[in-house]
Amino acid sequence: MTSTDDQRNGATGATVDDSAKALRHAMSGLSGPEATGWTGTVRPAGTPGQGAKVLILGAGVAGLTAAYELSMLGYRVTVLEAQERVGGRNRTARRGDEFYELDDHGTVTRTHTCAFDDGLYLNLGPGRIPYHHRRVLKYCRDFGVDLEPYVMETTANRVRPPDAEVTWPNRRVANDTRGHLAAKLAETLLSMDAFTGELRDLLRVFGALDTNGKYRGSTRSGYLDRPGIEEWPEPAPPLSFEDLVNSGFWKARFYQPVDYLWQATMFQPVGGMDHIVRALAREAARAGARIVLGAEVREIEIDRGGRGTTVTYRKGDDEFCADARHCVSNIPIPVLRTVGLTRFSHPFEQALDLVQFEKTCKVGWQANRRFWEGDLGGLDDTEGIYGGISWTGHNITQMWYPSNDYFSDKGTLTGAYNFGGAADTLGKMAPDKRLGLAREGAVQLHREFEDRKLVPDEQGVSIAWHKVPYQLGGWAAWQPHEEAHKKAYRQLLQPEGTDAFFVTGDQISPLPGWQEGAMMSAHYVTQQILGIMPLTAPEEVAVPDSVALTQGLY
Amino acid sequence: MTSTDDQRNGATGATVDDSAKALRHAMSGLSGPEATGWTGTVRPAGTPGQGAKVLILGAGVAGLTAAYELSMLGYRVTVLEAQERVGGRNRTARRGDEFYELDDHGTVTRTHTCAFDDGLYLNLGPGRIPYHHRRVLKYCRDFGVDLEPYVMETTANRVRPPDAEVTWPNRRVANDTRGHLAAKLAETLLSMDAFTGELRDLLRVFGALDTNGKYRGSTRSGYLDRPGIEEWPEPAPPLSFEDLVNSGFWKARFYQPVDYLWQATMFQPVGGMDHIVRALAREAARAGARIVLGAEVREIEIDRGGRGTTVTYRKGDDEFCADARHCVSNIPIPVLRTVGLTRFSHPFEQALDLVQFEKTCKVGWQANRRFWEGDLGGLDDTEGIYGGISWTGHNITQMWYPSNDYFSDKGTLTGAYNFGGAADTLGKMAPDKRLGLAREGAVQLHREFEDRKLVPDEQGVSIAWHKVPYQLGGWAAWQPHEEAHKKAYRQLLQPEGTDAFFVTGDQISPLPGWQEGAMMSAHYVTQQILGIMPLTAPEEVAVPDSVALTQGLY
Repeated sequence: MTSTDDQRNGATGATVDDSAKALRHAMSGLSGPEATGWTGTVRPAGTPGQGAKVLILGAGVAGLTAAYELSMLGYRVTVLEAQERVGGRNRTARRGDEFYELDDHGTVTRTHTCAFDDGLYLNLGPGRIPYHHRRVLKYCRDFGVDLEPYVMETTANRVRPPDAEVTWPNRRVANDTRGHLAAKLAETLLSMDAFTGELRDLLRVFGALDTNGKYRGSTRSGYLDRPGIEEWPEPAPPLSFEDLVNSGFWKARFYQPVDYLWQATMFQPVGGMDHIVRALAREAARAGARIVLGAEVREIEIDRGGRGTTVTYRKGDDEFCADARHCVSNIPIPVLRTVGLTRFSHPFEQALDLVQFEKTCKVGWQANRRFWEGDLGGLDDTEGIYGGISWTGHNITQMWYPSNDYFSDKGTLTGAYNFGGAADTLGKMAPDKRLGLAREGAVQLHREFEDRKLVPDEQGVSIAWHKVPYQLGGWAAWQPHEEAHKKAYRQLLQPEGTDAFFVTGDQISPLPGWQEGAMMSAHYVTQQILGIMPLTAPEEVAVPDSVALTQGLY
Repeated sequence: MTSTDDQRNGATGATVDDSAKALRHAMSGLSGPEATGWTGTVRPAGTPGQGAKVLILGAGVAGLTAAYELSMLGYRVTVLEAQERVGGRNRTARRGDEFYELDDHGTVTRTHTCAFDDGLYLNLGPGRIPYHHRRVLKYCRDFGVDLEPYVMETTANRVRPPDAEVTWPNRRVANDTRGHLAAKLAETLLSMDAFTGELRDLLRVFGALDTNGKYRGSTRSGYLDRPGIEEWPEPAPPLSFEDLVNSGFWKARFYQPVDYLWQATMFQPVGGMDHIVRALAREAARAGARIVLGAEVREIEIDRGGRGTTVTYRKGDDEFCADARHCVSNIPIPVLRTVGLTRFSHPFEQALDLVQFEKTCKVGWQANRRFWEGDLGGLDDTEGIYGGISWTGHNITQMWYPSNDYFSDKGTLTGAYNFGGAADTLGKMAPDKRLGLAREGAVQLHREFEDRKLVPDEQGVSIAWHKVPYQLGGWAAWQPHEEAHKKAYRQLLQPEGTDAFFVTGDQISPLPGWQEGAMMSAHYVTQQILGIMPLTAPEEVAVPDSVALTQGLY
């Protein structure tokens, strides 16, 4: 096998030998603490697919990635997508977009229509790309998707702790906590005569301590007063350690941005996250893939020999059959459970039954003035929040400020992004009630939300992903320490039949909820189909910690 | 006095009463820990200038700001600028730009010419705008200067500590230090049976400690290995606390980004910082100001009555005289010292003599591939540095990665930005020797700098600001605890004559080295000229700490 470098699509090949071990090594990339993720598919030269038919079920990120890669390899690819749009959870709301959810009886119901002004948009699914998610970045570069920084945290963001009725700026919470903790350590070191030398020097700079190891506040937390020509401002007086500890601020995910997945520099596509799936769909089609929208899969049957599948799907009022040498399912597992499966193994069906998807909601607002960016030049110009997230103990959990079109007139905000019980509560409400609850949480962060002309109800949107048809949740809720989860994760890595049916998506990747996970899985399945990645998973596989990977360590 | 709101130029007026006290209050803005800087000039209605002549010496940021504001107020403004360009230290290097410095004999000498490819640029003076520098942001918005985020820190940045021959990623230094310090505190709390309750919970999340309060590494520091489908990566093994402490990493300004002045979200103008001074010059001219380039001020004489000045300047081979009711000098103090001054007070001349400007150098590189952004899709794709700064104990002090045009082919880097002794050493060298030394420091951070085709010497630039004619330094080196500095700072806030001659610039502001300081000073002087700000400074004025304000707390 030799390397290939297809300039047209920008793929970078790599020389590999045939052994699974070497391939596994290549898949997982080079070793060493500096290694941060390798983006390439290991793509052999030529068109080994030789026209073999592949059916891909679901045009989410993984489905489209597999469609593109397999088409480039000479497979004859058809993608069946139940919805009238590609992208799955990669969804950007714009004016006129309609929202559908399942009602209490399981009936698909149109809940509302997006009424943002033309030109405004909001990402309702994935909203950011870490700098080490190399596959996503590479496809964006290769396919001409322009990226701009996504600001995860600015020190002007606000914190509304779960256990205190206060709203603090991020910079005070972060730096006063740091200062107090450093001072506590300095105090104990002093009592041991160990507050000396380099350690003392480090601790002083780390915590902004005075020469005696005390924390008396710091301009890191901002100013008490605005600077003037004649007076250098005093540091904001420190929040007391007691108040900070009692507030429980860290339980509201305050330290999430410290985790590797959310560290700077993050990116977002200019103009909306769905530019990624549009580009993938365009390039897959250009490579020969056929994408059929509105095609709802009803039954999947594995051939008796285990070397092919037949898929029955409904499109409009008609039912169709399609067969293929390989079938790759990007259908979310809770949805796949509802599809008729024939000649699938018992362990596989058990695995499907085990995997639950997380409940998660988002709320979106249009604001007719970007008040959070401050009133430049006004006497009350005390704020300038440019991107980032305010965290709150309220049901809404977090508020995202736009990282695009700074200093323009209007903007959109993510007014809620919650999980678990909070998402269950919010999701049960009708859209107007959701906006009511979200506004209540927003007012605690910004009193401007009281003004319904500034932030109109009519232009609010909401989505409860666990109620969205063909989605039924945010991501697979893997629990790394459960034996049953290990068994299920391993099972789903392996095809059904001999090599007839594969599951793909972030749902079966180490990055649940992340587009990088979806692409990683698509590459994995592609290589299984090529026969260069073993069809049998290793005895020991690691199951991702879905909560930590989507919401941080707390 | 009533408020005015001039839509055309976007200025926001404010109602003030005439008393100096109220004005002072308004100048310093509203009180309270949330106050973060007020941008507006207090501009009275109408055109109180009534055609009175104002001469502004120097078209730096403060000079241009004063020119704009005074012109808008009805003054007849002429700006005399010694150089053939506006902007002063606000300078962006582009192809064909020529660099001049004073040689050992004080003779102006052309040192080199910028040979960047067309379309590439690098800011050699100010390079970033904090979110709380509201004046700069306001002028940018009002004058249509597009801004984009300046990334101060990414966790992929590198650290080359002063006392160890290693290069570490930012994320490991930051998070391992934090974890070790938290564990040290947890240890002492444990010994007091105080590692309990909310404090324990906070400390665990703060430091990524295990349930026993130990720090065993964290994915905050990145991965040991790349993630694969079957294996969730181990955290990078923690750097030992001893290694971290012995390295002295914090002395290389590692914690500078924690200071308020460098906190996210920072901005930069799209296309180069000089878009700000171009816009200011354009709008000043539009408001009626006349800007004379190549006009070197030789003598300044205050009229006998103290109510006007006469300025003698040379342009080409000729000498000219100009007189004005008020003269505003934006000339850097070390340069003003060389100008003939007549009927200036002794305390004023003493103050001029006292103020020293900081030595500072920058080096710029063109790289023909953005290798620091990684080799997307390659097997050795281990890096993705998008913006931010790598810190080093080497003479170069820091390396800036571009926060613009990510994922494009070529790029420019700030290959040195140093101060004091390091700047003295570097500045004494000829440009080619500077590049040699800078390359040595760069290679320690990135071995790719060994490749002179990738980063050609011919396309490197350097500037020693303390040797640049009409500049003679980076910023006023104020020392807040020196009585003589307090006296001088106060003196320079007050006009000479009765109200004939004013000093402006970041040099006489609480923000030395920052454009916001320059604008703040221009507003202050404007209001002194208007008679709504007292001409006499308060007895007690605060002198800025120039080192902390330009280089952080260490």
